[in-house]
Amino acid sequence: MARRGRRPLGGPDTREAILSAARELFADRGYQATTMRAVGARAGVDPALIHHYFGTKDGLLQAALVLPVDPVELLAGVAADPARTGEQVVLRILRLWDDPAVQHRMVGLLRVGLSHPHTVDVLRDMLGRTVLVALVGHAAPDSAPLRAALVGSQIGGLLLGRYLVGVPPLAQASVDELAAAVGPTVQRYLTEPLDLPP
Amino acid sequence: MARRGRRPLGGPDTREAILSAARELFADRGYQATTMRAVGARAGVDPALIHHYFGTKDGLLQAALVLPVDPVELLAGVAADPARTGEQVVLRILRLWDDPAVQHRMVGLLRVGLSHPHTVDVLRDMLGRTVLVALVGHAAPDSAPLRAALVGSQIGGLLLGRYLVGVPPLAQASVDELAAAVGPTVQRYLTEPLDLPP
Repeated sequence: MARRGRRPLGGPDTREAILSAARELFADRGYQATTMRAVGARAGVDPALIHHYFGTKDGLLQAALVLPVDPVELLAGVAADPARTGEQVVLRILRLWDDPAVQHRMVGLLRVGLSHPHTVDVLRDMLGRTVLVALVGHAAPDSAPLRAALVGSQIGGLLLGRYLVGVPPLAQASVDELAAAVGPTVQRYLTEPLDLPP
Repeated sequence: MARRGRRPLGGPDTREAILSAARELFADRGYQATTMRAVGARAGVDPALIHHYFGTKDGLLQAALVLPVDPVELLAGVAADPARTGEQVVLRILRLWDDPAVQHRMVGLLRVGLSHPHTVDVLRDMLGRTVLVALVGHAAPDSAPLRAALVGSQIGGLLLGRYLVGVPPLAQASVDELAAAVGPTVQRYLTEPLDLPP
């Protein structure tokens, strides 16, 4: 629903209101059909202010796809008990996503990111600079980029299945059950031999 | 681009042209903004014919999200060598998706399915009736639905990462490398103890 009246210029609230409106509209109408004018109307701000903060529509998209939490910080210290690194990675990510506010924002972010070839490019670059960098930091040096991407494939599929699609066994399992089931997968991808063909 | 002229009534070509147009429009504009009239225009058929074949817009969506291959058939015999069931599951699915025509259709199907709360419901029901049923048929009896869903989460994340998002290490790896890396994960989810907490 569009907010009535105009917000005062400037301030972090205005910026966040614009981003929240942009995420909703990109998700509902698609990236191409969303105009700066429509984002301004939904956020209750003059479209000129959106240009002031974010430049182009692409700048607005980039800002809308910023993660709410830094993955490097989220995963700091997961290898304190090296045999349980995988379990810790799964636990920390699922505990974060079980927070309804984080979940709402991340589901919206994924919906926007997967919706259009251009938003997919922005999503892939963002994941490469953030999530994959954080995971490479905990991966064995041989094939570290592949190891990080394999972890990303498992965790990404789990998050989509549990929170976006709502596949019943994944949505109904406890965080501890999923950490026990998926932790060894992440552990193997990060630290154990992958036995790739020559 | 809209095709010029009208197709002759009836025939599987007409039905497939309607479905193909519907998948394109649902993916580009979203489910809500897509009208039967627009699908008819793109397919070069009278909208009344769409109603004749598919009933409502929801019926058209259901038909647009039908898988091009039956997963039960695709996975028949994967347990011929029981120690390599996981590897066979990954190999068969990736070989199928590496076919450009299948890949194009499946990427479009996922894009449509993930785009809107209603299309997500239809996607989840379809996956439950097809992919998860096929996987449960190869899972150990304890926690079989969870095992199938875990496999789905890993394979789904791999397919999204390789084909839809194009994460470089996943997109550039060979099918054999991915089967070696991911096969043991699928094997464990299907057949080995999950060590769930009590």
